[in-house]
Amino acid sequence: MHSQGIDYYLVQSPANRYYLSGFELFDPQCNESSGYLVISRDKAMLMTDPRYLEAGKEHFPEEDILIYTQNKYQKINELLKKLGVRSLGFEPQWMNCEFMESLKKEFDLVPARGLVEELRLIKDSYEIELIRDSCRLNHEVFHSVEAMLEPGLKETDIAWSAEKMFREKGASGLSFATIVAGGPRSALPHAIPRDMPIKNEEPLLLDMGCRLGDYCSDQTRTFWVGNNPSSEFKSAKKMVIDAQKLAIEKIEPGMPIKDAYDLVRTFFEKYRVFEYFTHALGHGIGLETHEHPSLGPMSKGLFMPGMVVSIEPGLYYPQWGGVRWEYMVLITEEGAEVL
Amino acid sequence: MHSQGIDYYLVQSPANRYYLSGFELFDPQCNESSGYLVISRDKAMLMTDPRYLEAGKEHFPEEDILIYTQNKYQKINELLKKLGVRSLGFEPQWMNCEFMESLKKEFDLVPARGLVEELRLIKDSYEIELIRDSCRLNHEVFHSVEAMLEPGLKETDIAWSAEKMFREKGASGLSFATIVAGGPRSALPHAIPRDMPIKNEEPLLLDMGCRLGDYCSDQTRTFWVGNNPSSEFKSAKKMVIDAQKLAIEKIEPGMPIKDAYDLVRTFFEKYRVFEYFTHALGHGIGLETHEHPSLGPMSKGLFMPGMVVSIEPGLYYPQWGGVRWEYMVLITEEGAEVL
Repeated sequence: MHSQGIDYYLVQSPANRYYLSGFELFDPQCNESSGYLVISRDKAMLMTDPRYLEAGKEHFPEEDILIYTQNKYQKINELLKKLGVRSLGFEPQWMNCEFMESLKKEFDLVPARGLVEELRLIKDSYEIELIRDSCRLNHEVFHSVEAMLEPGLKETDIAWSAEKMFREKGASGLSFATIVAGGPRSALPHAIPRDMPIKNEEPLLLDMGCRLGDYCSDQTRTFWVGNNPSSEFKSAKKMVIDAQKLAIEKIEPGMPIKDAYDLVRTFFEKYRVFEYFTHALGHGIGLETHEHPSLGPMSKGLFMPGMVVSIEPGLYYPQWGGVRWEYMVLITEEGAEVL
Repeated sequence: MHSQGIDYYLVQSPANRYYLSGFELFDPQCNESSGYLVISRDKAMLMTDPRYLEAGKEHFPEEDILIYTQNKYQKINELLKKLGVRSLGFEPQWMNCEFMESLKKEFDLVPARGLVEELRLIKDSYEIELIRDSCRLNHEVFHSVEAMLEPGLKETDIAWSAEKMFREKGASGLSFATIVAGGPRSALPHAIPRDMPIKNEEPLLLDMGCRLGDYCSDQTRTFWVGNNPSSEFKSAKKMVIDAQKLAIEKIEPGMPIKDAYDLVRTFFEKYRVFEYFTHALGHGIGLETHEHPSLGPMSKGLFMPGMVVSIEPGLYYPQWGGVRWEYMVLITEEGAEVL
């Protein structure tokens, strides 16, 4: 805040808000806020509506909770004026134009991107334990789901069985909508489970994760349903797993993040299959399923101990299907530890 | 669009996007879009990333799908320039500042609020049937949950049982996080279920709904666990239910929306309990749980046939708890029909 020249910072990203204060990890809808933090250099206040007063009191002394009711933006303006705010930093990727228009008449608005995201990049030991637990449950559910796979089961039933296992073992929910994609649909990185049976002698891609202790997990496996995997499948699966191993072996603190992607690109290029790898190599994960850093060709920055990222190479062939294999890793002082 | 003087309209609200095109009702995260519609006066195009190309093809001819990859905002700028866009209407309550900054260098940006929300206000017969189904399931699950209530059951277990029933009877998910609040916590309009048993001879508030056929339902009941409801509870429950009945009887097409709230206010004032009614009387519901119109003291507009709204008066006493009773109603030519 000092280097950005701001006296106050308005935090509205739900994950940033929760990370800093413990107040409400979620908004009720994407267009409806549970509340905003106003942070000065020596304290934090909460602005929220009456529904959340009690929840707010668990994290803030009552005198630091400012309540708005009708005419929200106008009330927030008045509350900020009373605090003596002049320069107000805000999250430009979160604040909508309507809110900004109402604030800019009164305050010197300073877009200050990523101040909290930068803190969230490095997980502390408490967060790492929660992420380990979330991953442990993810592995356990994958184990059970793999054992139940057989031709005739519907994609939607597999997704629901997995979700029930997550929830009954303590997860508060899924970290994202489960992907179950059989046959050629396994080539679609974004596949919604269908109400249709999976077939024998076809690939089946499963990408799923849970939220346990507030932290997300996210893993992918691609199985062959049946006993006679095609040679294309075996070959793609071997290349994907080898690419993942290579990245995990080489990643270490101080390495440019984009180099991880480039390693996998070079590996796939050697086998002339790079054109079938159509997304980034991975993403940060924590309170959100997708957070910084992204592991792509344009990524900036270096790997640092305490980062948690997914490593998920994939190869997708519209004719028969695709293979993706995803682990989460923790960057340690020595390298990358699979979670 | 004509009256706002815009040639093109950029739609990014997920519910608006889905309402107009059938493409993706959800974004993967609130800070991650599945895609944007660009609507001219005679056609609609989709801008999205490669993950959603296949999903897009189910709703748009391939030549009307514009794909961005890295540097999303810059790519979107280029795509819009190629289309010949000059004046661009946008949803000011959805567009974030960063996106707006990148667009305003190239285009004449016109905030055009609520163009699609206005269409969504009035549900057509197809939507009404889907909402009826969603409500029917909601009633059914309430019936089953009421029958299972007994002291010792945990709030979280009740919520999970209800969620399983919704899902196993066809719902794609909940329409919002279920509220199960026993004892004095029933006075909190926003109560997260606790991992604690409900007690005998206490109130229990249940507010829950599902998403079935994409449309949301939302209902609340407040029960007394045990056989000896307190006189305060009985009296509050009677007033709440009578207030709801009164509103439902009086609502008719052409009546100002705020008058419904005022009716209930006057009713509660007569019994000197208005101070315990701390929220609006209801809200529109459809593709989103909370949509227009809101039924509050500042609401503008008139009730019109085809609107679907919740009617949910409540009285909350921090000392012992609260009562809320919520139905959904369809505004018909004659009045309000309980769904």
